Amino acid sequence: MRAEFHQVAEKVNNWGRWGADDERGTLNFITPDVVKAATGSVRSGRSFALSIPLSSDGPQIGMIPGRINPLKTMLAINDPMTGNIDEFCTSDDSVVMGLQAGTHWDSLAHATYSNRIYNGAPIASLTTRGAAKCGIDKVGPLVTRGVLLDVARVKGVERLDPGYALTAEDLDAAAEMGKVTVRSGDIVLVRTGQIQLLHAGDKTGYTFPSPGFSMKTAPWLHAHEVAAVANDTIVFEVFPCEYEDLPLPVHLLHLVEMGLTQGQNWDLEALAADCAADGQYDFLLTATPEPFVAGLGAPVAPVAVK
Amino acid sequence: MRAEFHQVAEKVNNWGRWGADDERGTLNFITPDVVKAATGSVRSGRSFALSIPLSSDGPQIGMIPGRINPLKTMLAINDPMTGNIDEFCTSDDSVVMGLQAGTHWDSLAHATYSNRIYNGAPIASLTTRGAAKCGIDKVGPLVTRGVLLDVARVKGVERLDPGYALTAEDLDAAAEMGKVTVRSGDIVLVRTGQIQLLHAGDKTGYTFPSPGFSMKTAPWLHAHEVAAVANDTIVFEVFPCEYEDLPLPVHLLHLVEMGLTQGQNWDLEALAADCAADGQYDFLLTATPEPFVAGLGAPVAPVAVK
Amino acid sequence: MRAEFHQVAEKVNNWGRWGADDERGTLNFITPDVVKAATGSVRSGRSFALSIPLSSDGPQIGMIPGRINPLKTMLAINDPMTGNIDEFCTSDDSVVMGLQAGTHWDSLAHATYSNRIYNGAPIASLTTRGAAKCGIDKVGPLVTRGVLLDVARVKGVERLDPGYALTAEDLDAAAEMGKVTVRSGDIVLVRTGQIQLLHAGDKTGYTFPSPGFSMKTAPWLHAHEVAAVANDTIVFEVFPCEYEDLPLPVHLLHLVEMGLTQGQNWDLEALAADCAADGQYDFLLTATPEPFVAGLGAPVAPVAVK
Amino acid sequence: MRAEFHQVAEKVNNWGRWGADDERGTLNFITPDVVKAATGSVRSGRSFALSIPLSSDGPQIGMIPGRINPLKTMLAINDPMTGNIDEFCTSDDSVVMGLQAGTHWDSLAHATYSNRIYNGAPIASLTTRGAAKCGIDKVGPLVTRGVLLDVARVKGVERLDPGYALTAEDLDAAAEMGKVTVRSGDIVLVRTGQIQLLHAGDKTGYTFPSPGFSMKTAPWLHAHEVAAVANDTIVFEVFPCEYEDLPLPVHLLHLVEMGLTQGQNWDLEALAADCAADGQYDFLLTATPEPFVAGLGAPVAPVAVK
Repeated sequence: MRAEFHQVAEKVNNWGRWGADDERGTLNFITPDVVKAATGSVRSGRSFALSIPLSSDGPQIGMIPGRINPLKTMLAINDPMTGNIDEFCTSDDSVVMGLQAGTHWDSLAHATYSNRIYNGAPIASLTTRGAAKCGIDKVGPLVTRGVLLDVARVKGVERLDPGYALTAEDLDAAAEMGKVTVRSGDIVLVRTGQIQLLHAGDKTGYTFPSPGFSMKTAPWLHAHEVAAVANDTIVFEVFPCEYEDLPLPVHLLHLVEMGLTQGQNWDLEALAADCAADGQYDFLLTATPEPFVAGLGAPVAPVAVK
Repeated sequence: MRAEFHQVAEKVNNWGRWGADDERGTLNFITPDVVKAATGSVRSGRSFALSIPLSSDGPQIGMIPGRINPLKTMLAINDPMTGNIDEFCTSDDSVVMGLQAGTHWDSLAHATYSNRIYNGAPIASLTTRGAAKCGIDKVGPLVTRGVLLDVARVKGVERLDPGYALTAEDLDAAAEMGKVTVRSGDIVLVRTGQIQLLHAGDKTGYTFPSPGFSMKTAPWLHAHEVAAVANDTIVFEVFPCEYEDLPLPVHLLHLVEMGLTQGQNWDLEALAADCAADGQYDFLLTATPEPFVAGLGAPVAPVAVK
Repeated sequence: MRAEFHQVAEKVNNWGRWGADDERGTLNFITPDVVKAATGSVRSGRSFALSIPLSSDGPQIGMIPGRINPLKTMLAINDPMTGNIDEFCTSDDSVVMGLQAGTHWDSLAHATYSNRIYNGAPIASLTTRGAAKCGIDKVGPLVTRGVLLDVARVKGVERLDPGYALTAEDLDAAAEMGKVTVRSGDIVLVRTGQIQLLHAGDKTGYTFPSPGFSMKTAPWLHAHEVAAVANDTIVFEVFPCEYEDLPLPVHLLHLVEMGLTQGQNWDLEALAADCAADGQYDFLLTATPEPFVAGLGAPVAPVAVK
Repeated sequence: MRAEFHQVAEKVNNWGRWGADDERGTLNFITPDVVKAATGSVRSGRSFALSIPLSSDGPQIGMIPGRINPLKTMLAINDPMTGNIDEFCTSDDSVVMGLQAGTHWDSLAHATYSNRIYNGAPIASLTTRGAAKCGIDKVGPLVTRGVLLDVARVKGVERLDPGYALTAEDLDAAAEMGKVTVRSGDIVLVRTGQIQLLHAGDKTGYTFPSPGFSMKTAPWLHAHEVAAVANDTIVFEVFPCEYEDLPLPVHLLHLVEMGLTQGQNWDLEALAADCAADGQYDFLLTATPEPFVAGLGAPVAPVAVK
């Protein structure tokens, strides 16, 4: 692999930082003190949902084999328990879906290379039973301060150019605009505006080409001790990737080297409009993944409370 | 149906209270002011997960046809994108499950009787597409103050007797023990201890017979303007039911008459132990359901922050 | 509905023909004598599979909500039962799919109109549990003589024009070309050549517009006492339909009025090439649907033995 | 592994017999001549279904993780295409199920040991995509002569003792009773009567302990050039196994060493009653598996025509 990659990898590596058995990586930055302090970001008590709706009209277009949009079917429709419609009737449903089909977190085990998982866990821990190490169930409760870095806004565009690779300077500029200092244990949400294409029904355009994180942003997230990071795209990192011969390097830097939990398909539009209106870019963020045992990822219904 | 039921139904009915088109019922009690005040319950910043793990070893034993425990399968295992194991490899998974299989919220449309949904919505709104009215996606962000009413503890037992019907006096006694006053917009969590049977592997015993809510507790929840209510059982209300000829009356009172969102299979054991230790029975509760469009229920990963 | 429809409906109606409780319709034409005679069509003993492969690369493109191509996932991969790879290891899989996603039979309950199912069964027989009447499990063993009517070949084209409505004369001409007389209890397979588009990867073109059966062919199938009928298209009948204000009339004539089981996505290309080569257009056909209880349709793996 | 096993394995091994690239094993015994001759077994034209119903009430009790009984849900119920109930309405369904949940064939890749698949195919051919070699889609059309060996009847019992290991002598005795000579290319169906327990609702008893094939029957099936073999049990071979330290040896002998396709959960009761009545124990058997690409097994709806 390219030298550029290895240079960054070495710089941001967190293996052993939280012990040889750690499976949570940078989530360890979220201490009770961090959580308590985060409540100070709640000023008016207004809440913003950051998830996209879960339905068969989701963003998946078949690019990832088998990662299907939620197919929800009914198990019962107004079904009288006793046969008498005037007594208790039930309606019930079930779903089949890719665990990373909608708004989700990647588990640290989702990406690997050279037979390595975060913190050096053996690759053999990945089986048909899922991820014995670093599964999404290891995340646990996720409530901390969130910070919105609205890069599209700071650049004065509706949305970033397709294929634009975010830089450290972009993140600094967005933080400055938001008058917010990123602290250890924050979850950083970076807005590109790309999800507007999904809202407009252009699922293919939403998918590719896409702006996103780059090898240049990984050291920034490392230096700021960010606990987790999410954005409003489906690939998460810039796609097509920075180098043709280096597929998805940001996944490898974040998940494998840093142990940095990352999220995709987060809808930041309504939150961003509110932040632009009142100038407050920090908030209490609740974003606990569904605890699928040994899951490689999981749906999340994140909420920002300002 | 029994006169007892209709008397309570009339007393607790909320139809029209929040307008003819309302689909959120008592969740309307949660105002921004309520949310802001709830952050005052965070003192140390410690978080408690209240969900049970999502796996094929879940609590479902086939009592509800088709409501299966999560069956998670792998779509890819350490699969090299380029064919080269030293570059990006991916692991991915999908799931099929009943939407009410684990820790979940019922949507208001989950139960009906006499062709009535909450707020008089037409029964025809329930189709193979799901619940056009009062679906779980109508809930939105759910962050407010939570209060634990530990009825098992106030009665001095490990867990309530199987088949015990909770009373209004039980709730008052638990609130008094917890030195907490239930306020408008609170979510109330009632602990019976029943989930200990699930932890012990006794899924059948966990299911039935079970303590739970009764027709006596509905007016109490109504009077206190509770926003939503959950407990640590699978049926939620006492089972077998109070009257043999009156199946699941509490579902009808809560969901249909009051528009009171209710949750099941919440694991309150660790939280309760902590509350007993420090005497603090209120907390910030985050419990946003996964936004399944038109869903009759949805998984939730609730977290209490003290 | 148009008078043309009702005229044909009256002519081909079979309600009561096999008793008031019949759920099998024209399959009743298949008697033991018919089956025994069908073995006389086996001359060389060569077998031809008529099904398309079942995979995520199937013909479904999302036109029918929820009818997904088979998504097969692995439950175990070379998993050692005792932990020792030198002893018994297992590999196992599961699938989620629309029951009519691939090569399939429609059950007689699949289509309805004016609250009527075949033979006047009550519409209330259709619930979330499936089809209590006329489900695909009522078909039972399906082995009889098959006859290929190669309309594309008799017209001297690779495949029929998109949107071409088959006529009775087409069927007669194809039978004459094949030197075969359709008999009571035969299953008739009609080749349009449309499935070539699927083989070429043009799933949209395969779906629509498409040649297929019409209101003109229903009386022909009725008069010849055909037991069941299938073709090599996904809609089965000509699409767009013959009259803009009369959606899918052939489904209603066949399934509701006649009780004529019909099949779609049958791959007749290899069989047709062989029939053209040796001039033998009849064969033993085995086409028993998978017995899904109360299913609205079912996969079938039909085989022609010549 | 035990010397007994290796002795039998060496004797019955078919690797290379049909070429280095063969993926069909003993199915190669079924030639067109065999198929043509098989039609001679049809005397009256009566058909017998040999499959169990596909429903959520199937035989799976959770012994094999994830191999669930069919869960069928409705995609549409009497849904009017134009909104007008008097025009075309559709009902449609989907299913999720283990591919070996009901009456099925194992693919040759289903079992392995010492990193070996039938014919020495590399174990790496088994991935999340399924079986690249020896998948169930390689079987193709399956129509040949079937022979019922009714061991329960020849021993004069309703059903064989739980845990009874079939012997070569049992198969000879049943053939003699049936006045049938097993020929090259036949599919042999062996009746134990065990499935009576399933009919009686005793799913656990049906599963275990169970009579079935043994290391003693493999050489017999090899010597008779049997094309495929099925019985009326869920494990197929005797269970508990013959030696405590030798798990499922018959699977390894049949699938890995011989390339002998094997079937489970075949319901032979009605067929056996008829054979006992008329003394005819051979028939035309149609048993083509659903062509799941790369499947480790597949449902089949076998039919015997006498």
